Amino acid sequence: MVSTLQERLVRSAATVDSSVTLLADFQRWFRERLDADESRVEIIPFTAMRGWDFAPDTHNLVHETGRFFTVEGIRVRMPGAPVEEWRQPILHQPEIGILGILVKDFDGIPHFLMQAKMEPGNHGGLQLSPTVQATRSNYTRVHKGRAVPYLEYFQRTERHRVLADVRQSEQGSWFFRKRNRNMLVEVAEDEDIEVRDGFRWLTLGQLHHLLAVEDLVNMDARSVLACLPHSPLDPADTFPAPLAAGPHGTVAPGWPGQGRHALHGDADILSWITGLRTEREVFTERIPLREADGWHRTAHRISHESGRFFSVMAVDVTAGGREVGGWTQPMIEPHGPGVAAFLLAYADKVPHVLVQARAEPGYTDVVELAPTVQCTPRNYTHLPAGATPPFLEDVVEAPADRVRFDTVLSEEGGRFFHAFNRYLVVETELSAVPEEPPHYRWMAVRQLLDLIRHSHYVNVEARTLIACLHSLAV
Amino acid sequence: MVSTLQERLVRSAATVDSSVTLLADFQRWFRERLDADESRVEIIPFTAMRGWDFAPDTHNLVHETGRFFTVEGIRVRMPGAPVEEWRQPILHQPEIGILGILVKDFDGIPHFLMQAKMEPGNHGGLQLSPTVQATRSNYTRVHKGRAVPYLEYFQRTERHRVLADVRQSEQGSWFFRKRNRNMLVEVAEDEDIEVRDGFRWLTLGQLHHLLAVEDLVNMDARSVLACLPHSPLDPADTFPAPLAAGPHGTVAPGWPGQGRHALHGDADILSWITGLRTEREVFTERIPLREADGWHRTAHRISHESGRFFSVMAVDVTAGGREVGGWTQPMIEPHGPGVAAFLLAYADKVPHVLVQARAEPGYTDVVELAPTVQCTPRNYTHLPAGATPPFLEDVVEAPADRVRFDTVLSEEGGRFFHAFNRYLVVETELSAVPEEPPHYRWMAVRQLLDLIRHSHYVNVEARTLIACLHSLAV
Repeated sequence: MVSTLQERLVRSAATVDSSVTLLADFQRWFRERLDADESRVEIIPFTAMRGWDFAPDTHNLVHETGRFFTVEGIRVRMPGAPVEEWRQPILHQPEIGILGILVKDFDGIPHFLMQAKMEPGNHGGLQLSPTVQATRSNYTRVHKGRAVPYLEYFQRTERHRVLADVRQSEQGSWFFRKRNRNMLVEVAEDEDIEVRDGFRWLTLGQLHHLLAVEDLVNMDARSVLACLPHSPLDPADTFPAPLAAGPHGTVAPGWPGQGRHALHGDADILSWITGLRTEREVFTERIPLREADGWHRTAHRISHESGRFFSVMAVDVTAGGREVGGWTQPMIEPHGPGVAAFLLAYADKVPHVLVQARAEPGYTDVVELAPTVQCTPRNYTHLPAGATPPFLEDVVEAPADRVRFDTVLSEEGGRFFHAFNRYLVVETELSAVPEEPPHYRWMAVRQLLDLIRHSHYVNVEARTLIACLHSLAV
Repeated sequence: MVSTLQERLVRSAATVDSSVTLLADFQRWFRERLDADESRVEIIPFTAMRGWDFAPDTHNLVHETGRFFTVEGIRVRMPGAPVEEWRQPILHQPEIGILGILVKDFDGIPHFLMQAKMEPGNHGGLQLSPTVQATRSNYTRVHKGRAVPYLEYFQRTERHRVLADVRQSEQGSWFFRKRNRNMLVEVAEDEDIEVRDGFRWLTLGQLHHLLAVEDLVNMDARSVLACLPHSPLDPADTFPAPLAAGPHGTVAPGWPGQGRHALHGDADILSWITGLRTEREVFTERIPLREADGWHRTAHRISHESGRFFSVMAVDVTAGGREVGGWTQPMIEPHGPGVAAFLLAYADKVPHVLVQARAEPGYTDVVELAPTVQCTPRNYTHLPAGATPPFLEDVVEAPADRVRFDTVLSEEGGRFFHAFNRYLVVETELSAVPEEPPHYRWMAVRQLLDLIRHSHYVNVEARTLIACLHSLAV
């Protein structure tokens, strides 16, 4: 009998030593690449950038070719938020890139083709990345750069099996409406795939093991892994069809999964999101960077007068083995590490997480579903006590035996410099949150996966945590 | 045993004479209201409008209070389209209104509370409308107007059952990113609902009967009815969970609906949409109406120099029994009736329609799923033969015995003046379309209903046709 995708993914998650790649071999290989990596990243003054300059009229930071991205300003109004109006710099990169992971069965076990890739913002240089990270300029080849390896599998999918293909948002505080196309494409078992230098086939079990290593699996890889259509955390996964759900998620008799249910029915979850997106007002207007009041430029940094939030800065990169030998670019450097955490609880054996509907100025559609806690704690020290993010204490002060996941991972190293978040999954009881605050809902992991198939629902921090949740199945 | 929603909807669709409202009684009642309707609509010169004027700088048409909507300009670039660049006037109404239908069981049969409502653009004055059509100004009561009856059921849904709640787009050629919140809310059978003057409870079967009457069921009602989570057209509806679908829609053994399948799996459909939204470029920029080159203003109209497309014009409305006694407003008057049609075919008894991924300048997200044919035929007479919309002949020249639905219905009468579309459903064989053009896909009706739960997937013309498809079950 042919296995279902779900069964194969569960097998892959249970496989930590594959005959294709032994975990210890991978670790040795990765360490050797780290040792051999000669890339160097240096913080430089803005004036030392090559090809980048502040536009005379707007003071936006732009590349002379118009390529890559720009640093601009936005003016934000969020009536009802703790801070209702502000201005800030933001990255503008309207083109949609491809983040793709190639999947292939070896002996009936799906493996994922991962890449050891250097990005200037990575603390350690190399991180484990998707098979493909390609900007639109890369994949349309308008600039005749070197071809991106394996890109053809994501551009012509007819002969393959698409497991996921969805534009997902990225950081809404640092990016203006940035989306990347997240893809998982499975090739047939007999398709011959050359493993190029810098790439390795890994099982889900191996990836899950590596996710728990600090600063190793990069944001793009986590985001794509979150788009897997099934969670190994919930191997029964016989959750009924969304439309079979009755009020409060009860299901029609006779269905597999009968008796299993989500706390809130799908229609109620969608209605909650629609209500917030209809009623909540977020006005984000692009302005010249020059008009970002409160932000000041020195030779090396553009920073807020309070010292909080982040700086815009510039780096000079000397790379070994990347597309070009070296380059300079602006980056965003967050001030102080962040915390992103899900509270996890089981309702009748069905895993649920407490989801926050969160507005960020760069989102395309008002609010997205975010972790229970997502904040940079030090940004809140100047605000009154009531403005402290809900549930922050519950996660950072949880007893060790309730902490199911706790690892510092970093955000996209191509744009963000040493952007660390401590990602936590803390198990609790439903009764610990007797009443959900208006912007919070318990959602079954299965419900989040149903929404992640569509754009603009699940934010990038929540996607990292979903990849981490998958890993708890091991 | 408690019936499922699906079973109850099928019962409602099969009920043409309800004990609550006999169809003949409804028809008599509606005719009497038509006869008694004293409202009058007169086309006036722009200068005769009260409270509306052209702004001195932009020439935008605006209300002195800033309320309602504005008529502005847009500049559009669509590389690769038959016409790649143009400018045009467009309606800008950023606030999201509520279109809601109240649902209640009588003797186990769901009934829908419908309203006979006058809109100035309606040819016959009154049309059958949702329980509630409320703008944000209505429902936030900032202007202290008369309360909208039944609005409370859609604003506080906790005690009721939400069947659908989703922001849906409207005409992307006439509106700039307009969305309304489409809601179906079911109250308990023992909830006492007063039937106010102008309202009647109708079954789905009655609504389906009335849909086939020219110009009777209004666009808002059709749009909301399309959001019903099940189609009576496909009463088995045991289509498996989207995620259970394997390649090309095959389903896991043991599931109800095993063997039934869609021609394309859900992941493939989503990937097709993601690909088009990533690759297709649509640049829409708001400009002052003054800069809409090619459009000229006379005393009564703003029209394109070619005479095609539409005009902006103004009306004076004298209403009996509406919120205010009379008012003036600008409207859009399309030139020449449109055609919107689905080709319908059965694959292994599963109804499929041929869906077009269509870009319109006012859409929020590049393309939406549209009818097989959607055009105003006379707008194409000046273009070369190759630019004639595909499948137009197949639907307008179909033999009578293949035409399952054929009725002229009008678009939103609050903004569009005598905007008629001929809506057709034409049955064919899958083999009649041996190869789908790149922007077309056969989709199971069930797949469309899965997507209609989310915003920005199914356009308003396709939603009308989905309501019509539901009606074919009778």
